[in-house]
Amino acid sequence: LIPGMAINMNKISQELGISKTPLRDALLQLDIEGFVTISPRRGVFVNRLTVEDIRSCYEIIGALETAAILSVFDNIQPSHLEKMKWLNAALRVSLKREDYQTYYQQNLLFHDVFLGLSHNSSMKRIIMPMKRRLYDFPSRGYIKEWELSNCRDHDRLIDAFGTGDRAAAVNVWQNVHWSFESQEKYIRRFYYPESTGGRETQAARAAAGTPKQKRQRSVGRKKIASADV
Amino acid sequence: LIPGMAINMNKISQELGISKTPLRDALLQLDIEGFVTISPRRGVFVNRLTVEDIRSCYEIIGALETAAILSVFDNIQPSHLEKMKWLNAALRVSLKREDYQTYYQQNLLFHDVFLGLSHNSSMKRIIMPMKRRLYDFPSRGYIKEWELSNCRDHDRLIDAFGTGDRAAAVNVWQNVHWSFESQEKYIRRFYYPESTGGRETQAARAAAGTPKQKRQRSVGRKKIASADV
Repeated sequence: LIPGMAINMNKISQELGISKTPLRDALLQLDIEGFVTISPRRGVFVNRLTVEDIRSCYEIIGALETAAILSVFDNIQPSHLEKMKWLNAALRVSLKREDYQTYYQQNLLFHDVFLGLSHNSSMKRIIMPMKRRLYDFPSRGYIKEWELSNCRDHDRLIDAFGTGDRAAAVNVWQNVHWSFESQEKYIRRFYYPESTGGRETQAARAAAGTPKQKRQRSVGRKKIASADV
Repeated sequence: LIPGMAINMNKISQELGISKTPLRDALLQLDIEGFVTISPRRGVFVNRLTVEDIRSCYEIIGALETAAILSVFDNIQPSHLEKMKWLNAALRVSLKREDYQTYYQQNLLFHDVFLGLSHNSSMKRIIMPMKRRLYDFPSRGYIKEWELSNCRDHDRLIDAFGTGDRAAAVNVWQNVHWSFESQEKYIRRFYYPESTGGRETQAARAAAGTPKQKRQRSVGRKKIASADV
C-alpha cells in the first residue's frame, strides 16, 4: 500500500476471502483514524502522512499525555518510578543492539506506565491510533540520535515525578518531548529523508541493509497488511 | 431513544426507508463517538452519559482547546478580540431572554473564534462529537447561574488574550472553564438533577413548562433523531 493509491475493495475482498461488510467497517475505521480517505463515488485512497498531519498529531498527543500526567501526578508511587527507570534502561539496551522493534514496544510500555494510571479510556482511544499512524513504518530506518534524545526526555520526566515538580513534567512533555518545533529536525530526517540531504538517506540505507533490519521490515509490513483488513 | 435501550436496526431501516449499509455506517460512527455501543451478536445499545464520561470529555476538551489557545496565541488580532467581546455580550442577552437554543449556538461560535485560527483539523474532529455528547440534550433545562459563570470565564480569556498573558489563558481555560472539579456542582445539577435535591429538579421542571422551552425541546429531539441515522 503506497500513499495516494486507490484501494480496490473487490480485489481485497476476493484475495482475502472476506465479505465486503467487514471490509467496509474496517475502512470506515481507518478513515476516521486518518489512514485512508473514503471519497464517495471515487473510491478509497491511502493517505500520505504530511508534515501538517505530524504537527497535528504531536499537538494532540502532547496535550493529552500531559493532561494525563497531571491527572495521575499524585498517584505516582515509587514502584511506578522503578518501572519507568527499568524500562528506560531497557530502551537504551535495545538502542545499543539496534533492535528497534523491541525499542518501539518498550517505548509504548514506558508511556503506558502513566497512561495506565489514568481512568480516561476515551483519551487512550484517541492517542493509540495516532501513535500507530506516526510509528507503524519500521521500513523507514530509525535515527539513533533521536531515540537517545527521547530517552533523555524520559529521564527528565522520571525526575519531575520523583521530585514532585509538576511544572517540570509539563515542560519536558508538552514543550520538548511532544513539541513539533523541538523535534522538527528529527521528524524531517525520519519521515522525509529525501528532502533533508544525502547523509541521513545513506545512513538509513546502510541500516536497512543488515539482515536483522530486513527481518524487522518484513514483520512490520505484515503487521500493516493485516491491520488494513 | 432512552439510555440503555437496544436499537432495532430492522425497524429503523424499515421506518426510515433506508437500507442497512448506511445505517451500519452511521451506528459505527456513533459507537466511535461514544453515543452507542455495538455489541457483537447482542445488538446496538444507546449509551448513558455517566459522570466518568463527562469527566473524560472535560479533560480531553480542556487539554485540546488549551493547546489550541497556546498555538494561536500570537495570531490573535484586535478584530478577534472584538468578535469575542461581541459574542460574549450576545450570550448574556440570550441568557437574559432565556433563549438557550441561541445561547448554545453563540457559545459554539465563541469557542470557534480561536479554534478557527488553529490549523489542526484533527483536533476539531475530536472536539466536536464530544461537545455534541455534552450539549445535545436541551430537554434537561438550563442552569442560568452556570451559564453566567461561563460568560465570566470568557471575559477572563479575552482579558488574557488582550494583555498577552499566556499563563492566565491556560489557567482559566484548563483549570476553571474545562475543569471537571471546578464545574462539578453545576455538572451534577444539570446532568443528574434527581440526585442533587429537589430545588434544581423543580427549577428544571418549571423551566421545561414554558411554551418556548417546549418548542426548543422538540427541536432538540428532532435533531438528535435525525443524527441517529
